[in-house]
Amino acid sequence: MSGALEYFSRNQERFISEWKEFLAFPSVSTDPAYSAHCRECADWVATHMTKLGFRTEIWTTATKPLVYGLLPGNPSKPTVLFYGHYDVQPPEPLELWTTPPFEPTLRDGRMYARGAQDNKGQVFFFFKAIEALRAQGADLPTIKVLIEGEEECGSIAMHAGLPQWRDALAANILMVCDTGMVAHGRPTITMGLRGIIGCEIQVHGPSIDLHSGVYGGLVLNPIHALTKILNGMFNEDGSIAIPGFYDGVEAPSAEDKARANAAPLDLDAVAKNLGVPLAGGERALPPMERRGFRPTIEVNGIGGGYQGVGGKTVIPAVAMAKISSRLVAGQDPEATLAKIKRYVRDSVPVGCRVEFTAEKVGGHAFRLSTTSPVVKIASEAIRRSFACEPVFLWEGASVPIIPDLATTSGAEPILVGFGLEADAIHSPNESFSLRQLEEGYRYTVSFFETL
Amino acid sequence: MSGALEYFSRNQERFISEWKEFLAFPSVSTDPAYSAHCRECADWVATHMTKLGFRTEIWTTATKPLVYGLLPGNPSKPTVLFYGHYDVQPPEPLELWTTPPFEPTLRDGRMYARGAQDNKGQVFFFFKAIEALRAQGADLPTIKVLIEGEEECGSIAMHAGLPQWRDALAANILMVCDTGMVAHGRPTITMGLRGIIGCEIQVHGPSIDLHSGVYGGLVLNPIHALTKILNGMFNEDGSIAIPGFYDGVEAPSAEDKARANAAPLDLDAVAKNLGVPLAGGERALPPMERRGFRPTIEVNGIGGGYQGVGGKTVIPAVAMAKISSRLVAGQDPEATLAKIKRYVRDSVPVGCRVEFTAEKVGGHAFRLSTTSPVVKIASEAIRRSFACEPVFLWEGASVPIIPDLATTSGAEPILVGFGLEADAIHSPNESFSLRQLEEGYRYTVSFFETL
Repeated sequence: MSGALEYFSRNQERFISEWKEFLAFPSVSTDPAYSAHCRECADWVATHMTKLGFRTEIWTTATKPLVYGLLPGNPSKPTVLFYGHYDVQPPEPLELWTTPPFEPTLRDGRMYARGAQDNKGQVFFFFKAIEALRAQGADLPTIKVLIEGEEECGSIAMHAGLPQWRDALAANILMVCDTGMVAHGRPTITMGLRGIIGCEIQVHGPSIDLHSGVYGGLVLNPIHALTKILNGMFNEDGSIAIPGFYDGVEAPSAEDKARANAAPLDLDAVAKNLGVPLAGGERALPPMERRGFRPTIEVNGIGGGYQGVGGKTVIPAVAMAKISSRLVAGQDPEATLAKIKRYVRDSVPVGCRVEFTAEKVGGHAFRLSTTSPVVKIASEAIRRSFACEPVFLWEGASVPIIPDLATTSGAEPILVGFGLEADAIHSPNESFSLRQLEEGYRYTVSFFETL
Repeated sequence: MSGALEYFSRNQERFISEWKEFLAFPSVSTDPAYSAHCRECADWVATHMTKLGFRTEIWTTATKPLVYGLLPGNPSKPTVLFYGHYDVQPPEPLELWTTPPFEPTLRDGRMYARGAQDNKGQVFFFFKAIEALRAQGADLPTIKVLIEGEEECGSIAMHAGLPQWRDALAANILMVCDTGMVAHGRPTITMGLRGIIGCEIQVHGPSIDLHSGVYGGLVLNPIHALTKILNGMFNEDGSIAIPGFYDGVEAPSAEDKARANAAPLDLDAVAKNLGVPLAGGERALPPMERRGFRPTIEVNGIGGGYQGVGGKTVIPAVAMAKISSRLVAGQDPEATLAKIKRYVRDSVPVGCRVEFTAEKVGGHAFRLSTTSPVVKIASEAIRRSFACEPVFLWEGASVPIIPDLATTSGAEPILVGFGLEADAIHSPNESFSLRQLEEGYRYTVSFFETL
């Protein structure tokens, strides 16, 4: 480890220069106007990986290219697949950036650029750790790398291509550095992500908007029907009332529950910052269990009738709600969506009919246990390089491509990232500090040394 | 009556010419761009009334002028106050008009123009009936006329001015011809209108929109709180669950109930046309009782979170609903709004707070009984001039100025209008047939003869 740290210091100037090259590509994936820049960025990644020693391929797809690399190593060690993305969020609003988003600028030890952290910064420290390990002749496993270009817009090409890339991606460990830590020097293992499904529910009533005086009391208002349907999804205690919704939900071990509840997060400060008590979901359970181990349904949007200034006395023809549901380990996405739809259909009162649109089966949850071998390796790597215990967080968000990639590759995922709130990812003035870059590098070196 | 009908035939050409003059003014009240046209139209009305023999005044106000006229008559007869309006709805979309909305055109016995029926047509037949009655030396009561210019935008000046006009408006009967009939030749007495109150309910949760994965299960979603509040307003049978909401509601007599239910309306055809069964309100009651005699709450609009294309996984900071409530005889508007607000405040779950905006106390309901003296006069006038029984309709809509005007003037309202669905009021190609004009004229003559 000391050699690798010395290598980092000695080469820091070159590292910064290369990192700036990587960040200068406006590789915005959602806007087709940036397509050429995305291709140029993929080329840079491929060239860089080749210099690191990888046999590199650019996989062209119907949308954005992916970069794949293979570095054969010690076959007695578990094969590691590293996943990251070279695409970034749009930089707008541009006027809020102190320096332009694609002119990377180092100020007070932080690199400011779109993608500085998410995910170019966290891909870059991985690359530099591999470079350092190879420079010191480390005994590395076979390492595979997949860097995609559509993480910020739904991983379209990856979802479509995974089945045909099964052999190329086969691995034992799926390493991802696209998450955060609770504080500087407190590396954090993301022990789970929830799955996600969703749909839009449209409740149709009369053929046209009606006068609410002439027809009020005669015609059932679709907004009333919709609120009845939505309200009926929940029990008084905040749990979900849809028949069969909790089927298959896997309970965490008592030890993992205790670890989740012990995460060094100041929940009072979170509540104060949000301006509300943490009164959502299954209120009888501790907050971190609710978020980490329990599924939810949230109405993400609702609309119907007149929403402008003042009033308009109508019974609208239609009302709609967009819902999404976060799933946990053991829940089947397709089956759970079917149960939600069945409940809605069974709940529509006479006088309205329902339609579903924008159905989305985002994917399964994944959940690790602190007893899992890969968690033990990462934990040991953190102890050795940071002289502290790892923080274990079972997250509530979803990154559907990770469970899918884990399934395709046969690898167990391990998510350790070095982001902090201050990095302002997806916002103006995104940044990543040299200290965080070095922490990620240090963890990566330690991970491969521990392996 | 025969003399009056002969007078109509003999003067029909002149009547049409005068009516066209009246209709040619683009007296749109909602759009300030038409203000000068509104004043010109008020001048025309005043001049016309003066020619009919009225002592006429134009009452200027902070907004649109009103035209007032007094025609002293037999003091032993009940004084009649006629109320109408010279303002019209905006004519847009203009491209859907066959002939321009302010170039009145007679085609196939129908006059096409904005305001042809609502309300210029129905004011005009009143004027012509008075002219005919006076030409024949009829024994008329004292007649007062008030034609306002803001009926289509809230009767602003009238609501403000009524208290100071009490003496000028004092009367026994308030005559209004701004409603419809169920079919040609079936004059219809509007026996009631509902009152109206309303407000916007804003449910506030976290200080900003949150990620529904990260915070789902932690933070209460304001849309969930709103749907719970709204759904809790209703019982399973469609009645309203808010404590005290039905306080004071006056039950109609058994005879009026029977008459309401006997109205010659084809409810099956209405339901077919709307595409839904009449499954709203208190479903255990017959439809005409629900509409005519029972109050409602309708959610006229609802909104919160993401309503665009696709999905966005947020827990929104705020959700809102616009509600209105139709009141019936015996309900106090202020007190009922206070009960609704109290219910909402008492129902807000921990984790959200509520605000009320756009509060509106539109006014009281009014309701007549078939035993009321003015209804007997109108009924007899209809029998004499149409050789049929009147139709009695207790309407669900609200025209708040009418109960207010009745209260100020001390007059009992009698609403008989000659509109038909085919007139397309508020829509392109509004029209009123010469036959309807003559029917209204005939009723008005008969009403004063019966008096």
